[in-house]
Parts: sequence; C-alpha cells; structure tokens
Amino acid sequence: MSAATLKHPSTQEAEAEIRAAIDAWSKAMEDRNVDGLVADCAPDILLFDIKPPYQLQGIDAYRKVWEQCLPCFPAKFQSEYRDLKITVDGDVAFVHGLHHIKPIGDPKHPAGLTWVRLTVCYRRIDGKWKSVHEHVSVPFDPRNGQVAFITEP
Amino acid sequence: MSAATLKHPSTQEAEAEIRAAIDAWSKAMEDRNVDGLVADCAPDILLFDIKPPYQLQGIDAYRKVWEQCLPCFPAKFQSEYRDLKITVDGDVAFVHGLHHIKPIGDPKHPAGLTWVRLTVCYRRIDGKWKSVHEHVSVPFDPRNGQVAFITEP
Repeated sequence: MSAATLKHPSTQEAEAEIRAAIDAWSKAMEDRNVDGLVADCAPDILLFDIKPPYQLQGIDAYRKVWEQCLPCFPAKFQSEYRDLKITVDGDVAFVHGLHHIKPIGDPKHPAGLTWVRLTVCYRRIDGKWKSVHEHVSVPFDPRNGQVAFITEP
Repeated sequence: MSAATLKHPSTQEAEAEIRAAIDAWSKAMEDRNVDGLVADCAPDILLFDIKPPYQLQGIDAYRKVWEQCLPCFPAKFQSEYRDLKITVDGDVAFVHGLHHIKPIGDPKHPAGLTWVRLTVCYRRIDGKWKSVHEHVSVPFDPRNGQVAFITEP
C-alpha cells in the first residue's frame, strides 16, 4: 500500500474505519470499559454533554464523565443506534444519529427512558480516526423548561 | 484559477469561506431574513434543534423552525459567538462553538437568558459550503429534568 493510499483511503474505506470506531466505542460502553471509551479520543476532545457543564475539554475530563456516568447505567444493557449517517472527505468526518441505552432485565431503569441525539466529529491523526468533538443532547420544552424525553424515535 | 484549485481550496481559504457563511447566517438572524437563514442549507439538512421534535429533515422544515422562532426573539438583538472553531479538509467541514441572542434595550428578554451549544457540519456542494447538519442544545440537570441555562460561559 502506498503512502498516498495510507494518507487518503477511499470514502468507503474511511466510512468502514469510522463505523468500526463507533462499534468499538459502543461495545466498550456495554463492557463498562473506560479505557475503550477514550481509546479513539483526540487529546483535546471538546465535549458538549447531555448534562452540565456546557462544555468540557480534554481526554481526562472526558474520561471522568464516563467514570461518573457508567454507575448510573443498568447492570446489563445494550447500546443501540438509529439513523446513523457518516460523512467523510480527506482527513475530516462527522457522524450524526440517535443513541439509546436499552436496559436488559430492568425495562424501567431511568437510563433507558430516552433516546439522545448524537453528533461526533473526527480528524484523521497519524492515520487513525480520532474524535475531536462530541455533542449529545435531548431537546427541551421552552414553555416549562423541562427536558423532552424521546421514548420512541 | 484551475479546476483543481476551485475543487479544493486551501484550508485557510476554506475556513474563510465557512466563516463568511456563518457571519451571513448571523446577520440574516439579526435582520429576521428567513431567506438569508436558509441560503446556505443543503436541501436535505438534518436539524437537531434546541426544542422538540428530536430531529427535523429538509430545508422546508428548517425554514418553518425559523419562521416560528423569530417572533420569539427581542425586537432588536445581536447574534454573538464564543469559542468558534472551524475544522476542514477537502469538501467536508465542521464548526462548534457557543451562541447567544443578546437583547438590545430589553436585557431581561427570555430569548437572551441562555447561551446555547452549536455544532454545524458542512459539505462543499458544487463549489459552495452547504450546512447538512445542525445540532443546537442546552444541557439539562438529570436530578430534576430541568434545562440548565448558561448565563455566562
């Protein structure tokens, strides 16, 4: 494989690489494997998380979010996606879709109450796709300031 | 200018083009100019808006959101940004930052109560940067389900 091929894989190859990174992230979540969850993060990842603060920067802050978050998840769950779309050119890519924690054996667990909207933006750094920005959210009802959960997209 | 140059401007040129598109969008907001707000949208733009529904697709749906939203804004306001970062390669780009409606002459107007997190993803289509995905949100407090406004980032 030439250096040029390594630097710029075909769109199809790049999409497959990013799909594999998302699958690995999802599996790491199910396994409560924090090292796996941060494995494809850029050192300066910027996170707009579902809960405050409004932004967090850096892989250490991202790791802490997951360390605090995982104990709030059901004992067993499936990490599931819908409407995932990958857009890529050269060394930049973005992904958007919906994500859900599906509790196994505990259907009323609060972590399973809503789907969330997910946008992940990537750069290809030293030949590997790294997440440089994640934006996770649920909409809210401006009439009462309450979050608007999405039980069935 | 060669066709190749037209197809792939330098990163610096591409960033300047995207910055100009954001400035035009911001100005259109201040002018309540809906045609201006949709001018740089791709026909199939996917919107994760700050309020329900959880996703909206297409330029007509995006236009309707703005038509419904603009009357809720102050009579006069400034559209302001912070921490705007543009990442681009080839024909794909993304931008993230914070956005605020700053009321002029009506400092307690509800539309000015919070900054929002903004991620916009672009494709370069027929030589023009088009927004294919926008994600706008405010975090919420999982202890009470209330939105967590950001008065000072």
